[in-house]
Amino acid sequence: MSIREEIIKQAEKAKKASYQLANIYTNDKNRALYMVAEGLESNVELILKENEKDLKKAKEQNMSKAFIDRLSLSRKRIEQMANGVREVADLDDPVGDIIEMKNRPNGLKIGKMRVPIGVIGIIYEARPNVTVDAAVLCLKSGNSVILRGGSSAINSNKVLQKIINKNLIKAGLPEGSVQLIQTTDREAVKELMTLNQYLDLLIPRGGAELINRVVNESKIPVIQTGVGNCHIFVDKTANLKKAVNIIVNAKTTRPAVCNAAESLLIHQDIAKNFIPMIADILNDLDVEIRGDNVAVEFVDSIVEANTSDWGKEYLDYIISLKTVKSVEEAVEHINKYGTKHSEAIITENYTNSQKFLNEVDAAAVYVNASTRFTDGGQFGMGAEIGISTQKMHARGPMGLKELTTNKYVIYGQGQIRE
Amino acid sequence: MSIREEIIKQAEKAKKASYQLANIYTNDKNRALYMVAEGLESNVELILKENEKDLKKAKEQNMSKAFIDRLSLSRKRIEQMANGVREVADLDDPVGDIIEMKNRPNGLKIGKMRVPIGVIGIIYEARPNVTVDAAVLCLKSGNSVILRGGSSAINSNKVLQKIINKNLIKAGLPEGSVQLIQTTDREAVKELMTLNQYLDLLIPRGGAELINRVVNESKIPVIQTGVGNCHIFVDKTANLKKAVNIIVNAKTTRPAVCNAAESLLIHQDIAKNFIPMIADILNDLDVEIRGDNVAVEFVDSIVEANTSDWGKEYLDYIISLKTVKSVEEAVEHINKYGTKHSEAIITENYTNSQKFLNEVDAAAVYVNASTRFTDGGQFGMGAEIGISTQKMHARGPMGLKELTTNKYVIYGQGQIRE
Repeated sequence: MSIREEIIKQAEKAKKASYQLANIYTNDKNRALYMVAEGLESNVELILKENEKDLKKAKEQNMSKAFIDRLSLSRKRIEQMANGVREVADLDDPVGDIIEMKNRPNGLKIGKMRVPIGVIGIIYEARPNVTVDAAVLCLKSGNSVILRGGSSAINSNKVLQKIINKNLIKAGLPEGSVQLIQTTDREAVKELMTLNQYLDLLIPRGGAELINRVVNESKIPVIQTGVGNCHIFVDKTANLKKAVNIIVNAKTTRPAVCNAAESLLIHQDIAKNFIPMIADILNDLDVEIRGDNVAVEFVDSIVEANTSDWGKEYLDYIISLKTVKSVEEAVEHINKYGTKHSEAIITENYTNSQKFLNEVDAAAVYVNASTRFTDGGQFGMGAEIGISTQKMHARGPMGLKELTTNKYVIYGQGQIRE
Repeated sequence: MSIREEIIKQAEKAKKASYQLANIYTNDKNRALYMVAEGLESNVELILKENEKDLKKAKEQNMSKAFIDRLSLSRKRIEQMANGVREVADLDDPVGDIIEMKNRPNGLKIGKMRVPIGVIGIIYEARPNVTVDAAVLCLKSGNSVILRGGSSAINSNKVLQKIINKNLIKAGLPEGSVQLIQTTDREAVKELMTLNQYLDLLIPRGGAELINRVVNESKIPVIQTGVGNCHIFVDKTANLKKAVNIIVNAKTTRPAVCNAAESLLIHQDIAKNFIPMIADILNDLDVEIRGDNVAVEFVDSIVEANTSDWGKEYLDYIISLKTVKSVEEAVEHINKYGTKHSEAIITENYTNSQKFLNEVDAAAVYVNASTRFTDGGQFGMGAEIGISTQKMHARGPMGLKELTTNKYVIYGQGQIRE
C-alpha cells in the first residue's frame, strides 16, 4: 500500500469512528479513559523500553540536551501522564449541551447544541506526552484523532498509542478513535493535509517553522497555536514593585514556554529610574537584556538590540527592551511585532488600562498581572490542547469546549416558511 | 504597479483601518451606515447607468436569464438595498460585549470580550447586492473588508463601493474600511489568497467551484458557505399532511436557494402509499422526480436516478427520491451525501426524532419543519453574510456575532503565577 493509500485508510476509519464517538455517553468515555490510565501504569516497563530506543538514537545523533529532555520518559513522567488522563476524565463533558434555546414567534424552538468537531489531526514534535494528552482531550470531547508525532519519538509513540487503543476497544469505544501515522516519512504529512473530506481540523503543535508549513499547505482548517512573543508595557504610572514582580515572574519562571515574556516596553518618563533597576534584577537572574539606544545609554550590561529582536520569541533567558513615549506607541509596537498571544500593561492609570485592553490585538490582554497565566488550568478550563494565537473558532487556551462546534437543533410541529 | 503590489497596498490599508474600526462607538458606525443608505438613494440614476453597462455586456455575451436577473438593479432593488443597510444599522452591535467574566481564586478577573475579526475578504459572483450587504455587515461588526465581485458586475460594484466609501469617510470612519479590488484579472484573487499576514478571514460566496478553489488555494482561514443538498426524511410514523406541506414548502417556494430541499428519503413501509401521493402533488407543481428503483415501480412519471443524483444540489424544480428501510439508513445516507447544511425528519416517533437530531451531521437539523427556515432572519439573528456549512468558528447562518471573535481581558492587582 502506498503512503497515500495508508493515510486514506486511516482517515476513513477515523471518520467512521467519529460518528460513533459523537453519541457515546460521558460515563462510557470516562470509563475508557480510566482504563487507559491504568493501561499506562501497568505497562511502565514496556513504555520505558521503547522510549529507550528513541533516546539511544537521539543521543547517537547528538541531539541537544533540551531535545532529549523533552523526549525522555521516566516512571514519574508516566505516572503524571496517567494522572493527567484521569483529570481529563473528571472534567465536565461539553458534548450535547444545549447552550441556548429560543422560542420563535411561529412556535419553532431553535437550540444550539455542542457537538464534537469530528476528526482532528495533530501534528507535533518529539514529545511523547503529547500523544497521550492530545488523544484523551480529543476523545473526551467526542472527536476521533489522527496523531503524527515527531519521527524521533516513533517507538515511544507507537507503544503509547497501542496501549491507548487496546484499552479503548476493551471499553467498547470504536476502533479508529485514536490512530497514529506509522511511517516517519514526511510524505505522510503532505498527504494528510490534503484530506479535507475526512479531517475537520488540523492542529500543529511545535515551532514556528512547523506551524507555517501547515498553514501554507493545508486544505484542512488549521488552528495556529503556541508562538508567543509576549510584551510587558510598564507605563509611567506603574507601581514599580508590581512591575518588577510581574516581569521576573513572566520572564524567569519558565522561559521556554509560550506565555513567558519576551519583550519589555518602558515609558520614557520612568526609563532613567526603572531601566537600571530592572536590569540589575534581571542580570542577577542571568537574563540577557537587548535594549534600544536609550536603554543602552543607561546600563552598560544591556546589549544593543537590532530590529529583528522586536519580533523574536527567545524561549530563553533573554529579553528585549524598548522605551516608548506613550501607551499609543506601546499598543502600536505590540500590534506590529506581537504574535497575538499574551500582552500586559502595568499601570495605575485607568484610561490607559482601558485603552490597552481595548486596542491590543491578542488572545489575552492583562492589566497588572503576569502573562504566565495564559493557560487552560489557570483560566479554570482544565487541560488544554494548545493556546490558539489566531482569531477563527477559538482564541487563547483551547480546552474541551473549544474542541467542539455547534449545531442548530430545531423542534417543529409542521411549520413551513411563509 | 503590479497586481500583487496593488493588492498588498489595499491589504495594508485594510489592516490599518481594522485597528481603528475595532474601537469606534456603535453610534458612529450607525450614523455612517444611515449616510450610506441615503447615499445609495440619492444616486439611483448613477447606479442604474453603471449597472446598464454591465447588463449590456452580459446580454452581448448571451448570459442566461437567471444570470442577468441576478446582475440587474432597479429603482426598487436599490431602495431595498438602502433599507437593508438601515436594518443592519438597527441591529445590536456585538462588539465589546463581555460574554463572561470569571473571578479566579487568586483574585484575577478573566473576561471574554467580543471583538471584530479584523480584515475580511469576500469573494463573490456577479451579484451587486452582495457588495452592499457584505460591506455593511462587516462594518457594523467592526471589520474592514476587501471585496472581490464577479467581473461581469465590475461597473456596478465600482459605483456602489464609491458611494459607500464616500459616505463612510464623510461620517469619520477610516479610509480603507471598505475596498473593492479594481481589476477583474483572476490573478488578483490568487494574490489575495496568499496575504494571511493582512487578512484574517476569507468568505467565498457562490457556487461549489468557486468555494472549492478558495478552500484548496487559500492560506487565509476560509469559511465555506451556501452549498445545500438538503434532505427530508419521511419516517413511517410521519403525519403525512405535515410531510406534504413541508416538502412542497421546502422544494417549491424558492428552488434556487441553498436551504431548498433537494432529496426525499421515504421509509419503505409507507412508500407504496406516500410516493404516488407526493409524486402527484409535485408533478402538478412541475417538479421532476428522480427516484430509486422502488419509486420508479410505483409511479410512471418518476425518472430513474443514477448514483450521482444523491449528491446533487439541483437548485431547480427537480428532486431526488430514495426509499430507506430505517432511520439509521436515512442518517447514514445523509451523512454520506449531504453538504452539512439543513436536514429534516418528519416523524411522530420520539426516539427517531432524537436519533435524527443527535446523529445527523449538519448545521441545522429539523424535526417536523421546513428546511427553508435556515436563514439569519428566520433564526432571529437579522441579516446574514452567509450560511456556514463547515464546522470551525461558526455553523449555520452567520450574522454579526459570527463576524466577531473573542479576546480574554484580564484585570489583575499585581498577581504572579506560583
